[in-house]
Amino acid sequence: MPTVVNLQAKLALFDEVFAPRTVGTFNGHDLMVVKARGALDWHVHPDTDDFFLVLDGRLRLETEEGNVELAAGELYVVPRGVRHRPVAEDGCTILLIEPTGTPNTGDAASAAPRRVI
Amino acid sequence: MPTVVNLQAKLALFDEVFAPRTVGTFNGHDLMVVKARGALDWHVHPDTDDFFLVLDGRLRLETEEGNVELAAGELYVVPRGVRHRPVAEDGCTILLIEPTGTPNTGDAASAAPRRVI
Repeated sequence: MPTVVNLQAKLALFDEVFAPRTVGTFNGHDLMVVKARGALDWHVHPDTDDFFLVLDGRLRLETEEGNVELAAGELYVVPRGVRHRPVAEDGCTILLIEPTGTPNTGDAASAAPRRVI
Repeated sequence: MPTVVNLQAKLALFDEVFAPRTVGTFNGHDLMVVKARGALDWHVHPDTDDFFLVLDGRLRLETEEGNVELAAGELYVVPRGVRHRPVAEDGCTILLIEPTGTPNTGDAASAAPRRVI
């Protein structure tokens, strides 16, 4: 039987920040939930856009093209090749979509491992 | 300057049902908001998965593999090649992601035109 993904239920399963959990796949992409607090290092994905939808809290995406502030229910796509870093001073939760295998830090050596929940 | 997409603000711009509005693009896909009420005809997308995230209300996805009931904050990906139809008896709003150009009815002749808002 097909099963739905309840995003809040998935987020309740872990506490780690900047450690995406894969909750589904779609056309070669991972659908991931992420908890963010503080800042991730500046990085770039040369070959893929980067989809962020804020579920709760607030997220600032600092990019070399300017900054955006996202509240719950707001999304932004960082275009491929644009350096950026996510900053969530007070914490937030995110639905993140990237091609399966994309390193979340832009660098395989420092990336969080793929974890499916 | 980059601008964020507020999903509720986009949904406030129209009333039509089963008439997706494109609010952004991501890796060759359209990010669309949709209002649904009633049922769309059974159809299939042979070459793409079909991403549904319910924003408000309730959606039943009837598929040839079984049905799923989605509430707000729940997502489901209909795998490519699986016949399905969305049913929203009391109405709902959806974030829908499909490759740009995918006919929402599975058939170019009956599909809603691409509209960007």
